[in-house]
Amino acid sequence: QLWSFRRLYQVQTRQLRLLSATEDEHGGLFVDMQDPMDSHLFASSLRASLSHWTRLGKRGIWIKLPIRHYNLIEAAVKEGFWYHHAEPKYVMLAKWLPQDEPCALPANASHRVTVGAFVINDKKEVLVVQEKNGMLKGKGVWKFPTGTANQGEDICAAAVREVKEETGIETKFEQVLTFREHHKAFFQKSDLFFVCFLKPLSYNIKVQESEIEAAQWMPFQEYTAQSFVQRYELLRNMVKICKAKMDGRYSGFPAVPIKPSFKEGRDIIYFNNNQASNSNDGSTQ
Amino acid sequence: QLWSFRRLYQVQTRQLRLLSATEDEHGGLFVDMQDPMDSHLFASSLRASLSHWTRLGKRGIWIKLPIRHYNLIEAAVKEGFWYHHAEPKYVMLAKWLPQDEPCALPANASHRVTVGAFVINDKKEVLVVQEKNGMLKGKGVWKFPTGTANQGEDICAAAVREVKEETGIETKFEQVLTFREHHKAFFQKSDLFFVCFLKPLSYNIKVQESEIEAAQWMPFQEYTAQSFVQRYELLRNMVKICKAKMDGRYSGFPAVPIKPSFKEGRDIIYFNNNQASNSNDGSTQ
Repeated sequence: QLWSFRRLYQVQTRQLRLLSATEDEHGGLFVDMQDPMDSHLFASSLRASLSHWTRLGKRGIWIKLPIRHYNLIEAAVKEGFWYHHAEPKYVMLAKWLPQDEPCALPANASHRVTVGAFVINDKKEVLVVQEKNGMLKGKGVWKFPTGTANQGEDICAAAVREVKEETGIETKFEQVLTFREHHKAFFQKSDLFFVCFLKPLSYNIKVQESEIEAAQWMPFQEYTAQSFVQRYELLRNMVKICKAKMDGRYSGFPAVPIKPSFKEGRDIIYFNNNQASNSNDGSTQ
Repeated sequence: QLWSFRRLYQVQTRQLRLLSATEDEHGGLFVDMQDPMDSHLFASSLRASLSHWTRLGKRGIWIKLPIRHYNLIEAAVKEGFWYHHAEPKYVMLAKWLPQDEPCALPANASHRVTVGAFVINDKKEVLVVQEKNGMLKGKGVWKFPTGTANQGEDICAAAVREVKEETGIETKFEQVLTFREHHKAFFQKSDLFFVCFLKPLSYNIKVQESEIEAAQWMPFQEYTAQSFVQRYELLRNMVKICKAKMDGRYSGFPAVPIKPSFKEGRDIIYFNNNQASNSNDGSTQ
Protein backbone atom coordinates (compact mmCIF):
# COMPACT_ATOMS: atom_id res chain seq x y z
CA GLN A 1 0.00 0.00 0.00
CA LEU A 2 2.77 2.34 0.88
CA TRP A 3 4.56 1.62 -2.37
CA SER A 4 1.48 2.19 -4.48
CA PHE A 5 0.72 5.43 -2.65
CA ARG A 6 4.22 6.72 -3.25
CA ARG A 7 4.05 5.76 -6.85
CA LEU A 8 0.79 7.60 -7.38
CA TYR A 9 2.19 10.62 -5.61
CA GLN A 10 5.23 10.60 -7.86
CA VAL A 11 3.12 10.44 -10.98
CA GLN A 12 0.94 13.31 -9.84
CA THR A 13 3.92 15.47 -9.01
CA ARG A 14 5.39 14.77 -12.38
CA GLN A 15 2.17 15.56 -14.17
CA LEU A 16 1.95 18.89 -12.42
CA ARG A 17 5.54 19.91 -13.09
CA LEU A 18 5.47 22.84 -15.48
CA LEU A 19 7.94 23.33 -18.31
CA SER A 20 10.55 26.02 -17.76
CA ALA A 21 9.91 28.98 -20.01
CA THR A 22 11.31 32.46 -20.54
CA GLU A 23 9.11 35.46 -21.39
CA ASP A 24 9.43 37.23 -24.72
CA GLU A 25 8.71 40.93 -25.43
CA HIS A 26 5.29 40.22 -26.90
CA GLY A 27 3.52 38.53 -23.99
CA GLY A 28 4.62 35.08 -25.08
CA LEU A 29 6.81 32.32 -23.69
CA PHE A 30 9.82 30.47 -25.04
CA VAL A 31 10.55 26.87 -24.02
CA ASP A 32 14.05 25.65 -24.90
CA MET A 33 14.11 21.84 -24.58
CA GLN A 34 17.86 21.36 -24.38
CA ASP A 35 17.65 18.37 -22.02
CA PRO A 36 16.17 15.02 -23.01
CA MET A 37 12.77 14.14 -21.52
CA ASP A 38 10.48 11.14 -21.49
CA SER A 39 7.77 11.70 -24.09
CA HIS A 40 4.88 10.83 -21.73
CA LEU A 41 6.21 13.11 -19.03
CA PHE A 42 6.63 15.86 -21.62
CA ALA A 43 3.06 15.36 -22.82
CA SER A 44 1.57 15.75 -19.33
CA SER A 45 3.88 18.64 -18.40
CA LEU A 46 3.03 20.42 -21.63
CA ARG A 47 -0.72 19.97 -21.02
CA ALA A 48 -0.45 21.32 -17.46
CA SER A 49 1.78 24.17 -18.63
CA LEU A 50 -0.64 25.20 -21.38
CA SER A 51 -3.54 25.37 -18.88
CA HIS A 52 -1.43 27.49 -16.58
CA TRP A 53 -0.18 29.79 -19.34
CA THR A 54 -3.70 30.24 -20.71
CA ARG A 55 -4.91 31.35 -17.26
CA LEU A 56 -2.02 33.84 -17.15
CA GLY A 57 -3.17 35.33 -20.46
CA LYS A 58 -0.01 34.35 -22.36
CA ARG A 59 -0.04 34.76 -26.15
CA GLY A 60 2.46 33.02 -28.43
CA ILE A 61 4.18 29.87 -27.11
CA TRP A 62 7.44 28.74 -28.71
CA ILE A 63 9.06 25.34 -28.23
CA LYS A 64 12.56 24.81 -29.57
CA LEU A 65 13.38 21.10 -30.00
CA PRO A 66 16.94 20.05 -30.83
CA ILE A 67 16.94 17.45 -33.61
CA ARG A 68 17.84 14.64 -31.18
CA HIS A 69 14.57 15.21 -29.27
CA TYR A 70 12.27 14.00 -32.07
CA ASN A 71 10.44 11.96 -29.42
CA LEU A 72 8.76 15.16 -28.14
CA ILE A 73 7.23 16.32 -31.43
CA GLU A 74 4.16 14.09 -31.22
CA ALA A 75 2.96 15.58 -27.90
CA ALA A 76 3.42 19.14 -29.14
CA VAL A 77 1.55 18.46 -32.39
CA LYS A 78 -1.29 16.80 -30.47
CA GLU A 79 -1.58 19.96 -28.34
CA GLY A 80 -2.04 22.06 -31.48
CA PHE A 81 1.51 23.23 -32.07
CA TRP A 82 2.69 23.69 -35.68
CA TYR A 83 6.14 24.05 -37.20
CA HIS A 84 7.25 27.68 -37.30
CA HIS A 85 10.64 27.03 -38.87
CA ALA A 86 13.59 24.66 -38.73
CA GLU A 87 17.34 24.93 -39.04
CA PRO A 88 19.69 21.94 -39.44
CA LYS A 89 19.90 21.18 -35.72
CA TYR A 90 16.47 22.14 -34.38
CA VAL A 91 12.81 22.61 -35.17
CA MET A 92 10.79 25.48 -33.68
CA LEU A 93 7.16 24.73 -32.87
CA ALA A 94 4.62 27.44 -32.09
CA LYS A 95 1.07 27.82 -30.77
CA TRP A 96 -1.06 30.93 -30.40
CA LEU A 97 -3.15 30.85 -27.21
CA PRO A 98 -5.63 33.80 -27.43
CA GLN A 99 -8.92 32.51 -28.82
CA ASP A 100 -10.25 35.99 -29.65
CA GLU A 101 -7.24 37.43 -31.50
CA PRO A 102 -5.72 36.50 -34.84
CA CYS A 103 -2.27 34.92 -34.60
CA ALA A 104 0.34 37.69 -34.42
CA LEU A 105 3.45 35.51 -34.49
CA PRO A 106 6.09 36.72 -36.95
CA ALA A 107 6.16 35.01 -40.34
CA ASN A 108 8.99 32.70 -41.21
CA ALA A 109 11.86 33.98 -43.40
CA SER A 110 10.65 34.30 -46.98
CA HIS A 111 13.67 35.34 -49.02
CA ARG A 112 17.27 34.61 -49.71
CA VAL A 113 19.68 37.24 -51.00
CA THR A 114 21.92 36.66 -54.01
CA VAL A 115 24.48 39.03 -55.46
CA GLY A 116 26.04 39.69 -58.84
CA ALA A 117 29.23 41.70 -59.24
CA PHE A 118 30.00 44.17 -62.03
CA VAL A 119 33.74 44.76 -61.83
CA ILE A 120 35.41 46.81 -64.56
CA ASN A 121 39.05 47.83 -64.97
CA ASP A 122 40.57 50.96 -66.51
CA LYS A 123 40.65 49.34 -69.95
CA LYS A 124 36.85 48.91 -69.82
CA GLU A 125 37.26 45.18 -69.43
CA VAL A 126 34.70 43.41 -67.25
CA LEU A 127 35.48 40.53 -64.90
CA VAL A 128 33.62 37.40 -66.09
CA VAL A 129 33.57 33.71 -65.24
CA GLN A 130 32.35 30.40 -66.67
CA GLU A 131 30.66 28.12 -64.13
CA LYS A 132 31.36 24.41 -63.69
CA ASN A 133 27.88 23.57 -62.36
CA GLY A 134 24.30 24.67 -62.81
CA MET A 135 22.32 25.54 -65.88
CA LEU A 136 25.17 27.23 -67.74
CA LYS A 137 27.60 24.33 -67.36
CA GLY A 138 29.52 23.62 -70.54
CA LYS A 139 27.69 26.28 -72.55
CA GLY A 140 30.63 28.65 -72.83
CA VAL A 141 28.66 31.52 -71.33
CA TRP A 142 30.71 34.29 -69.70
CA LYS A 143 28.88 35.88 -66.78
CA PHE A 144 29.44 38.19 -63.82
CA PRO A 145 30.53 36.46 -60.60
CA THR A 146 27.42 35.64 -58.56
CA GLY A 147 26.55 33.91 -55.32
CA THR A 148 24.34 33.71 -52.26
CA ALA A 149 24.76 35.95 -49.23
CA ASN A 150 25.43 33.97 -46.07
CA GLN A 151 23.00 34.32 -43.20
CA GLY A 152 23.87 37.57 -41.41
CA GLU A 153 26.16 38.81 -44.20
CA ASP A 154 25.76 42.30 -45.68
CA ILE A 155 25.01 42.54 -49.38
CA CYS A 156 28.10 44.67 -49.99
CA ALA A 157 30.30 42.16 -48.13
CA ALA A 158 28.79 39.19 -49.98
CA ALA A 159 29.62 40.75 -53.37
CA VAL A 160 33.25 41.38 -52.38
CA ARG A 161 33.57 37.85 -50.96
CA GLU A 162 32.12 36.12 -54.01
CA VAL A 163 34.42 37.98 -56.41
CA LYS A 164 37.43 37.12 -54.24
CA GLU A 165 36.40 33.44 -53.92
CA GLU A 166 35.67 32.88 -57.60
CA THR A 167 38.45 34.93 -59.20
CA GLY A 168 40.95 35.92 -56.51
CA ILE A 169 40.38 39.60 -57.37
CA GLU A 170 40.24 42.09 -54.47
CA THR A 171 37.53 44.72 -54.81
CA LYS A 172 35.90 47.64 -53.07
CA PHE A 173 32.10 47.82 -53.01
CA GLU A 174 30.78 51.02 -54.59
CA GLN A 175 27.03 50.80 -55.26
CA VAL A 176 23.96 48.63 -55.67
CA LEU A 177 22.98 49.33 -59.29
CA THR A 178 19.71 47.40 -59.45
CA PHE A 179 17.93 44.53 -57.77
CA ARG A 180 15.51 41.93 -59.01
CA GLU A 181 12.80 40.09 -57.12
CA HIS A 182 11.94 36.58 -58.21
CA HIS A 183 9.39 34.39 -56.44
CA LYS A 184 9.28 30.61 -56.03
CA ALA A 185 13.00 30.50 -56.61
CA PHE A 186 13.47 27.51 -54.27
CA PHE A 187 10.60 25.67 -52.63
CA GLN A 188 8.10 28.51 -52.06
CA LYS A 189 10.75 31.07 -51.17
CA SER A 190 11.79 34.21 -53.05
CA ASP A 191 15.14 35.48 -54.26
CA LEU A 192 16.33 39.09 -54.15
CA PHE A 193 19.26 39.50 -56.54
CA PHE A 194 21.39 42.63 -56.04
CA VAL A 195 23.72 43.74 -58.84
CA CYS A 196 26.66 45.52 -57.25
CA PHE A 197 29.25 47.81 -58.84
CA LEU A 198 32.72 47.12 -57.44
CA LYS A 199 36.10 48.74 -58.08
CA PRO A 200 38.97 46.28 -58.60
CA LEU A 201 41.92 46.61 -56.21
CA SER A 202 43.94 43.83 -57.85
CA TYR A 203 44.10 42.42 -61.38
CA ASN A 204 45.69 38.96 -61.39
CA ILE A 205 43.03 36.30 -61.70
CA LYS A 206 43.23 33.09 -59.68
CA VAL A 207 40.36 30.75 -60.55
CA GLN A 208 38.47 28.83 -57.85
CA GLU A 209 38.88 25.26 -59.11
CA SER A 210 35.78 23.71 -57.52
CA GLU A 211 33.09 25.98 -59.00
CA ILE A 212 34.67 27.99 -61.80
CA GLU A 213 35.79 26.65 -65.19
CA ALA A 214 37.50 29.86 -66.31
CA ALA A 215 37.69 33.57 -65.52
CA GLN A 216 39.01 36.55 -67.45
CA TRP A 217 38.96 40.28 -68.01
CA MET A 218 36.84 40.65 -71.16
CA PRO A 219 36.14 43.74 -73.26
CA PHE A 220 32.68 44.96 -72.22
CA GLN A 221 31.47 44.92 -75.84
CA GLU A 222 32.42 41.27 -76.15
CA TYR A 223 30.48 40.38 -72.99
CA THR A 224 27.47 42.28 -74.30
CA ALA A 225 27.58 40.64 -77.71
CA GLN A 226 26.96 37.11 -76.29
CA SER A 227 23.63 35.78 -77.55
CA PHE A 228 22.93 34.54 -74.03
CA VAL A 229 23.16 38.10 -72.74
CA GLN A 230 20.96 39.48 -75.51
CA ARG A 231 18.31 36.80 -74.95
CA TYR A 232 17.26 37.71 -71.40
CA GLU A 233 15.58 40.90 -70.31
CA LEU A 234 17.41 40.99 -66.96
CA LEU A 235 20.80 40.80 -68.68
CA ARG A 236 19.85 43.34 -71.38
CA ASN A 237 18.85 45.75 -68.61
CA MET A 238 22.06 45.03 -66.72
CA VAL A 239 24.06 45.88 -69.84
CA LYS A 240 22.12 49.15 -70.20
CA ILE A 241 22.71 50.03 -66.53
CA CYS A 242 26.39 49.05 -66.54
CA LYS A 243 26.99 51.02 -69.75
CA ALA A 244 25.33 54.07 -68.19
CA LYS A 245 27.46 53.57 -65.05
CA MET A 246 30.66 53.35 -67.15
CA ASP A 247 29.65 56.54 -68.96
CA GLY A 248 29.12 58.35 -65.64
CA ARG A 249 25.39 58.97 -66.08
CA TYR A 250 23.93 56.45 -63.61
CA SER A 251 23.74 56.68 -59.81
CA GLY A 252 23.05 53.57 -57.79
CA PHE A 253 22.81 53.23 -54.03
CA PRO A 254 26.06 53.33 -52.03
CA ALA A 255 26.18 51.63 -48.62
CA VAL A 256 25.99 53.88 -45.56
CA PRO A 257 26.56 52.29 -42.14
CA ILE A 258 24.17 53.55 -39.45
CA LYS A 259 23.44 52.90 -35.80
CA PRO A 260 20.37 50.63 -35.66
CA SER A 261 17.18 51.99 -34.10
CA PHE A 262 16.46 49.63 -31.24
CA LYS A 263 19.61 47.57 -30.89
CA GLU A 264 23.34 47.59 -30.50
CA GLY A 265 25.62 47.11 -33.46
CA ARG A 266 25.45 48.45 -36.98
CA ASP A 267 22.98 48.42 -39.85
CA ILE A 268 23.53 49.48 -43.43
CA ILE A 269 21.28 51.67 -45.55
CA TYR A 270 21.66 51.86 -49.30
CA PHE A 271 20.66 55.13 -50.96
CA ASN A 272 21.86 57.88 -53.23
CA ASN A 273 23.66 59.90 -50.58
CA ASN A 274 25.01 62.55 -52.97
CA GLN A 275 21.58 63.43 -54.30
CA ALA A 276 19.99 63.41 -50.86
CA SER A 277 22.68 65.68 -49.39
CA ASN A 278 22.93 68.06 -52.35
CA SER A 279 20.27 70.38 -50.95
CA ASN A 280 18.96 73.42 -52.84
CA ASP A 281 18.27 75.39 -49.71
CA GLY A 282 20.93 74.06 -47.35
CA SER A 283 18.33 73.00 -44.78
CA THR A 284 19.36 69.37 -44.70
CA GLN A 285 23.12 69.89 -44.89
CA GLN B 1 5.59 -23.79 -41.54
CA LEU B 2 3.82 -22.35 -44.51
CA TRP B 3 2.55 -19.43 -42.47
CA SER B 4 5.93 -18.64 -41.06
CA PHE B 5 7.53 -18.84 -44.48
CA ARG B 6 4.99 -16.46 -45.93
CA ARG B 7 5.45 -14.10 -43.07
CA LEU B 8 9.21 -14.02 -43.55
CA TYR B 9 8.75 -13.49 -47.24
CA GLN B 10 6.45 -10.57 -46.63
CA VAL B 11 8.86 -8.91 -44.27
CA GLN B 12 11.69 -9.27 -46.74
CA THR B 13 9.65 -7.81 -49.55
CA ARG B 14 8.70 -4.90 -47.37
CA GLN B 15 12.27 -4.28 -46.36
CA LEU B 16 13.34 -4.18 -49.95
CA ARG B 17 10.56 -1.85 -51.08
CA LEU B 18 12.17 1.43 -52.05
CA LEU B 19 10.63 4.80 -51.31
CA SER B 20 9.12 6.59 -54.29
CA ALA B 21 11.19 9.58 -55.27
CA THR B 22 11.26 12.16 -58.03
CA GLU B 23 14.48 13.49 -59.52
CA ASP B 24 15.50 17.12 -59.13
CA GLU B 25 17.62 19.17 -61.57
CA HIS B 26 20.76 18.80 -59.51
CA GLY B 27 21.21 15.02 -59.44
CA GLY B 28 19.18 14.66 -56.27
CA LEU B 29 15.92 13.00 -55.27
CA PHE B 30 12.78 14.28 -53.59
CA VAL B 31 10.62 12.00 -51.43
CA ASP B 32 7.17 13.37 -50.62
CA MET B 33 5.69 11.30 -47.76
CA GLN B 34 2.06 12.26 -48.22
CA ASP B 35 0.72 8.86 -47.11
CA PRO B 36 1.08 7.53 -43.57
CA MET B 37 3.57 4.70 -43.06
CA ASP B 38 4.57 2.42 -40.23
CA SER B 39 7.76 3.81 -38.70
CA HIS B 40 9.64 0.46 -38.77
CA LEU B 41 8.71 -0.14 -42.37
CA PHE B 42 9.81 3.40 -43.20
CA ALA B 43 13.13 2.86 -41.42
CA SER B 44 13.94 -0.28 -43.42
CA SER B 45 12.69 1.18 -46.72
CA LEU B 46 14.73 4.32 -46.15
CA ARG B 47 17.86 2.27 -45.41
CA ALA B 48 17.41 0.16 -48.53
CA SER B 49 16.63 3.26 -50.61
CA LEU B 50 19.73 5.09 -49.41
CA SER B 51 21.95 2.13 -50.40
CA HIS B 52 20.33 2.07 -53.81
CA TRP B 53 20.56 5.82 -54.32
CA THR B 54 24.20 5.88 -53.23
CA ARG B 55 25.01 3.19 -55.82
CA LEU B 56 23.25 5.32 -58.45
CA GLY B 57 25.48 8.29 -57.56
CA LYS B 58 22.62 10.47 -56.33
CA ARG B 59 23.55 13.69 -54.52
CA GLY B 60 21.08 15.58 -52.32
CA ILE B 61 18.13 13.63 -50.87
CA TRP B 62 15.04 15.53 -49.69
CA ILE B 63 12.26 14.09 -47.53
CA LYS B 64 9.12 16.17 -47.02
CA LEU B 65 7.14 15.03 -43.97
CA PRO B 66 3.66 16.47 -43.34
CA ILE B 67 3.29 17.46 -39.68
CA ARG B 68 1.00 14.48 -38.98
CA HIS B 69 3.82 12.04 -39.88
CA TYR B 70 6.02 12.90 -36.88
CA ASN B 71 6.46 9.15 -36.39
CA LEU B 72 8.87 9.06 -39.35
CA ILE B 73 11.32 11.70 -38.14
CA GLU B 74 13.29 9.36 -35.88
CA ALA B 75 14.27 6.99 -38.68
CA ALA B 76 15.36 9.84 -40.95
CA VAL B 77 17.46 11.47 -38.22
CA LYS B 78 19.08 8.12 -37.42
CA GLU B 79 20.05 7.82 -41.10
CA GLY B 80 21.85 11.16 -40.93
CA PHE B 81 19.13 13.48 -42.23
CA TRP B 82 18.94 17.02 -40.78
CA TYR B 83 16.20 19.64 -40.87
CA HIS B 84 16.51 21.85 -43.95
CA HIS B 85 13.47 24.01 -43.20
CA ALA B 86 9.91 23.80 -41.93
CA GLU B 87 6.64 25.51 -42.71
CA PRO B 88 3.50 25.25 -40.54
CA LYS B 89 2.33 21.96 -42.06
CA TYR B 90 5.55 20.13 -42.92
CA VAL B 91 9.21 19.68 -42.15
CA MET B 92 11.81 19.15 -44.89
CA LEU B 93 14.69 16.85 -44.07
CA ALA B 94 17.81 16.61 -46.17
CA LYS B 95 20.93 14.48 -46.56
CA TRP B 96 23.93 14.90 -48.83
CA LEU B 97 25.18 11.56 -50.19
CA PRO B 98 28.54 12.25 -51.93
CA GLN B 99 31.37 11.62 -49.47
CA ASP B 100 33.96 13.43 -51.53
CA GLU B 101 32.10 16.67 -52.25
CA PRO B 102 31.04 19.48 -49.92
CA CYS B 103 27.27 19.75 -49.45
CA ALA B 104 25.84 21.86 -52.28
CA LEU B 105 22.23 21.97 -51.11
CA PRO B 106 20.72 25.48 -51.21
CA ALA B 107 20.70 27.40 -47.94
CA ASN B 108 17.44 27.99 -46.14
CA ALA B 109 15.71 31.36 -46.52
CA SER B 110 17.65 33.96 -44.54
CA HIS B 111 15.62 37.16 -44.82
CA ARG B 112 12.19 38.66 -44.53
CA VAL B 113 11.18 41.79 -46.40
CA THR B 114 9.50 44.72 -44.68
CA VAL B 115 8.27 47.92 -46.28
CA GLY B 116 7.72 51.50 -45.20
CA ALA B 117 5.57 53.90 -47.22
CA PHE B 118 6.30 57.59 -47.79
CA VAL B 119 3.02 59.02 -49.11
CA ILE B 120 2.75 62.79 -49.54
CA ASN B 121 -0.15 64.87 -50.83
CA ASP B 122 -0.16 68.15 -52.78
CA LYS B 123 -0.14 70.19 -49.55
CA LYS B 124 3.16 68.53 -48.56
CA GLU B 125 1.42 66.58 -45.85
CA VAL B 126 2.72 63.09 -45.15
CA LEU B 127 0.53 60.09 -44.29
CA VAL B 128 1.35 58.90 -40.75
CA VAL B 129 -0.06 56.43 -38.24
CA GLN B 130 0.17 55.57 -34.54
CA GLU B 131 0.42 51.86 -33.80
CA LYS B 132 -1.60 49.97 -31.19
CA ASN B 133 1.02 47.27 -30.59
CA GLY B 134 4.75 46.88 -30.52
CA MET B 135 7.48 49.06 -29.13
CA LEU B 136 5.85 52.38 -30.02
CA LYS B 137 2.51 51.54 -28.36
CA GLY B 138 1.13 54.45 -26.37
CA LYS B 139 4.12 56.69 -27.04
CA GLY B 140 2.32 59.12 -29.34
CA VAL B 141 4.85 58.56 -32.12
CA TRP B 142 3.63 59.28 -35.66
CA LYS B 143 5.30 57.07 -38.24
CA PHE B 144 5.04 55.98 -41.87
CA PRO B 145 2.79 52.95 -42.49
CA THR B 146 4.97 49.83 -42.36
CA GLY B 147 4.52 46.09 -42.62
CA THR B 148 5.91 42.75 -43.74
CA ALA B 149 5.73 41.52 -47.34
CA ASN B 150 3.81 38.28 -47.64
CA GLN B 151 5.61 35.28 -49.06
CA GLY B 152 5.62 35.69 -52.84
CA GLU B 153 4.49 39.32 -52.73
CA ASP B 154 6.37 42.03 -54.64
CA ILE B 155 7.86 44.87 -52.60
CA CYS B 156 5.89 47.46 -54.58
CA ALA B 157 2.63 45.55 -54.02
CA ALA B 158 3.32 45.09 -50.30
CA ALA B 159 3.75 48.85 -49.83
CA VAL B 160 0.47 49.64 -51.60
CA ARG B 161 -1.35 46.93 -49.60
CA GLU B 162 -0.03 48.04 -46.21
CA VAL B 163 -1.04 51.68 -46.81
CA LYS B 164 -4.50 50.57 -47.92
CA GLU B 165 -4.93 48.20 -44.95
CA GLU B 166 -3.75 50.62 -42.28
CA THR B 167 -5.25 53.87 -43.57
CA GLY B 168 -7.73 53.08 -46.36
CA ILE B 169 -5.71 55.30 -48.72
CA GLU B 170 -5.28 54.10 -52.31
CA THR B 171 -1.81 54.67 -53.73
CA LYS B 172 0.39 54.09 -56.74
CA PHE B 173 3.93 52.80 -56.21
CA GLU B 174 6.56 55.13 -57.64
CA GLN B 175 10.04 54.25 -56.36
CA VAL B 176 12.17 52.47 -53.79
CA LEU B 177 14.01 55.37 -52.13
CA THR B 178 16.34 53.43 -49.85
CA PHE B 179 16.67 50.07 -48.15
CA ARG B 180 18.21 49.00 -44.90
CA GLU B 181 19.65 45.64 -43.94
CA HIS B 182 19.43 44.53 -40.35
CA HIS B 183 20.66 41.16 -39.07
CA LYS B 184 19.35 39.00 -36.23
CA ALA B 185 16.00 40.73 -36.53
CA PHE B 186 14.07 37.60 -35.52
CA PHE B 187 15.74 34.38 -34.41
CA GLN B 188 18.91 34.39 -36.53
CA LYS B 189 17.21 35.83 -39.60
CA SER B 190 17.72 39.20 -41.29
CA ASP B 191 15.34 41.97 -42.27
CA LEU B 192 15.50 44.00 -45.48
CA PHE B 193 13.42 47.17 -45.05
CA PHE B 194 12.48 49.00 -48.25
CA VAL B 195 11.27 52.61 -48.02
CA CYS B 196 8.90 53.20 -50.90
CA PHE B 197 7.65 56.49 -52.36
CA LEU B 198 3.95 56.25 -53.26
CA LYS B 199 1.54 58.73 -54.88
CA PRO B 200 -1.85 58.99 -53.14
CA LEU B 201 -4.89 58.25 -55.33
CA SER B 202 -7.42 58.96 -52.54
CA TYR B 203 -7.37 61.18 -49.47
CA ASN B 204 -10.05 60.12 -46.97
CA ILE B 205 -8.49 58.13 -44.15
CA LYS B 206 -10.21 55.05 -42.73
CA VAL B 207 -8.23 53.63 -39.82
CA GLN B 208 -7.68 49.87 -39.41
CA GLU B 209 -9.09 49.34 -35.91
CA SER B 210 -7.09 46.23 -34.96
CA GLU B 211 -3.56 47.55 -35.45
CA ILE B 212 -3.74 51.32 -35.77
CA GLU B 213 -4.59 53.81 -33.02
CA ALA B 214 -4.81 56.84 -35.30
CA ALA B 215 -3.83 58.04 -38.77
CA GLN B 216 -3.60 61.49 -40.34
CA TRP B 217 -2.13 63.68 -43.02
CA MET B 218 0.53 65.64 -41.14
CA PRO B 219 2.69 68.57 -42.32
CA PHE B 220 6.07 67.09 -43.21
CA GLN B 221 7.87 69.56 -40.92
CA GLU B 222 5.77 68.40 -37.99
CA TYR B 223 6.62 64.75 -38.68
CA THR B 224 10.29 65.66 -38.91
CA ALA B 225 10.25 67.66 -35.67
CA GLN B 226 9.34 64.63 -33.52
CA SER B 227 12.15 63.83 -31.10
CA PHE B 228 11.68 60.15 -31.94
CA VAL B 229 12.47 60.90 -35.58
CA GLN B 230 15.49 63.01 -34.70
CA ARG B 231 16.87 60.35 -32.36
CA TYR B 232 17.47 57.56 -34.89
CA GLU B 233 19.94 57.62 -37.75
CA LEU B 234 17.65 55.61 -40.05
CA LEU B 235 14.82 58.10 -39.58
CA ARG B 236 17.08 61.16 -39.93
CA ASN B 237 18.32 59.72 -43.23
CA MET B 238 14.77 58.98 -44.32
CA VAL B 239 13.83 62.61 -43.65
CA LYS B 240 16.82 63.78 -45.70
CA ILE B 241 15.90 61.44 -48.58
CA CYS B 242 12.17 62.27 -48.49
CA LYS B 243 12.92 66.00 -48.40
CA ALA B 244 15.22 65.63 -51.41
CA LYS B 245 12.50 63.63 -53.17
CA MET B 246 9.88 66.32 -52.43
CA ASP B 247 12.29 68.92 -53.79
CA GLY B 248 12.77 66.95 -57.00
CA ARG B 249 16.49 66.28 -56.53
CA TYR B 250 16.47 62.57 -55.64
CA SER B 251 15.99 59.58 -57.90
CA GLY B 252 15.13 56.22 -56.40
CA PHE B 253 14.53 52.93 -58.19
CA PRO B 254 11.20 52.51 -60.02
CA ALA B 255 9.83 49.00 -60.58
CA VAL B 256 10.23 47.54 -64.08
CA PRO B 257 8.49 44.22 -64.82
CA ILE B 258 10.60 41.83 -66.89
CA LYS B 259 10.35 38.33 -68.27
CA PRO B 260 12.35 36.04 -65.93
CA SER B 261 15.44 34.34 -67.29
CA PHE B 262 14.72 30.64 -66.84
CA LYS B 263 11.02 30.48 -66.00
CA GLU B 264 7.53 31.48 -66.95
CA GLY B 265 5.85 34.45 -65.35
CA ARG B 266 7.18 37.86 -64.42
CA ASP B 267 9.97 39.28 -62.29
CA ILE B 268 10.52 42.88 -61.25
CA ILE B 269 13.77 44.82 -61.40
CA TYR B 270 14.19 48.07 -59.52
CA PHE B 271 16.57 50.62 -61.02
CA ASN B 272 16.88 54.17 -62.20
CA ASN B 273 15.46 53.63 -65.66
CA ASN B 274 15.60 57.31 -66.71
CA GLN B 275 19.31 57.58 -66.01
CA ALA B 276 20.09 54.23 -67.62
CA SER B 277 18.16 55.09 -70.79
CA ASN B 278 19.33 58.70 -71.13
CA SER B 279 22.32 57.74 -73.24
CA ASN B 280 24.93 60.25 -74.37
CA ASP B 281 25.68 58.44 -77.58
CA GLY B 282 22.37 56.83 -78.35
CA SER B 283 23.88 53.36 -78.49
CA THR B 284 21.66 51.88 -75.77
CA GLN B 285 18.42 53.66 -76.77
